[in-house]
Amino acid sequence: MRNIDYTLYLVTDRELMSCPTVEESVERAVGGGASVVQLREKSCSSREFYELAVRVKRITAALNVPLIINDRIDICLAADADGVHLGQKDIPCAAARKILGGDKIIGVSAALPEEARRAELDGADYLGVGAVFSTSTKSDTRPVTPEIIRQIRAAVSIPFVAIGGINKGNISQLCGLGINGAAVVSAVVAQKDIEAAAREMRAAAEKL
Amino acid sequence: MRNIDYTLYLVTDRELMSCPTVEESVERAVGGGASVVQLREKSCSSREFYELAVRVKRITAALNVPLIINDRIDICLAADADGVHLGQKDIPCAAARKILGGDKIIGVSAALPEEARRAELDGADYLGVGAVFSTSTKSDTRPVTPEIIRQIRAAVSIPFVAIGGINKGNISQLCGLGINGAAVVSAVVAQKDIEAAAREMRAAAEKL
Repeated sequence: MRNIDYTLYLVTDRELMSCPTVEESVERAVGGGASVVQLREKSCSSREFYELAVRVKRITAALNVPLIINDRIDICLAADADGVHLGQKDIPCAAARKILGGDKIIGVSAALPEEARRAELDGADYLGVGAVFSTSTKSDTRPVTPEIIRQIRAAVSIPFVAIGGINKGNISQLCGLGINGAAVVSAVVAQKDIEAAAREMRAAAEKL
Repeated sequence: MRNIDYTLYLVTDRELMSCPTVEESVERAVGGGASVVQLREKSCSSREFYELAVRVKRITAALNVPLIINDRIDICLAADADGVHLGQKDIPCAAARKILGGDKIIGVSAALPEEARRAELDGADYLGVGAVFSTSTKSDTRPVTPEIIRQIRAAVSIPFVAIGGINKGNISQLCGLGINGAAVVSAVVAQKDIEAAAREMRAAAEKL
């Protein structure tokens, strides 16, 4: 599972999505070209999160894309997802690696070169770097400038995706910075035609 | 770790506690006779929960009582706590047992004989049965009558603690029902002298 295509990294958002179920938004986004799916749930119970993860895993496994669980290592293990994504306020990467062993993917959010280096040393497989643009889906984010992205690229050898407010109007500003993919939330799941939006963002992300 | 003394089962509550830190309330309650500690955190970040669990584990290990983590199997593993307690809205017991293996304690909340039987079949080590009295710390609880407690006692062979609004004024009503211990929250941590309150509740719990 370690040879991941990070080109278009979909992050789910139940509140923003344009269709009735998370499963449907994932299926459509992957149909349009999303190459990784991160399931992010911030307010449901552990049981609901677990049951949703089991259902989404069936879809991503059938479509042959990895499923990453936001924050909850236990949900990842229980649903046999492919990995977890850890923010700076989640369980530290080194502790997560001990629990998960070498087989699961671990991603870490980084907004600074030192956070990126730390994550790589602690066993992260990839980074989520952002917020690269201002965004409504995360309120606690600092702006990550092209200069900082270049510093992060120089600081680590693991792949990273840019995240935060990326849409079809601004994605081209991220070209040439050494980014391995674009993480998208509302630019895909909030659009009326999720599959078409994913197709368009995928084409743009391939030019990064 | 499986031969647990469930007599006085302390559940932490940051909002109700009378002293400044969770660590201090745990230390005092165990000093007064709490024989198991459950760390329950509902609103902090995973990182804070993890770091607190690591600190509390040091205390409970030194005092030789088991530490149980509410809901979060990943925090249990990362902090090397002794087990988890799972509500009916948390990850199902059978899935938790698969992740945790045989060495960690798993407790499950049960308010009905069928929930209790299911939990035992799914590998639970003990049950938390309640709410046995009305309580302000849980809003989604159904009343569990002495008759239901007797039915649960008849339905399973694993130990169980009663939980929900138990205090020095009502604990004697639980005598003779086959309960293995009393789980307490505000009757200990919200009292001015936590150690004295624990001592008093411990003496009463020994008569169950």
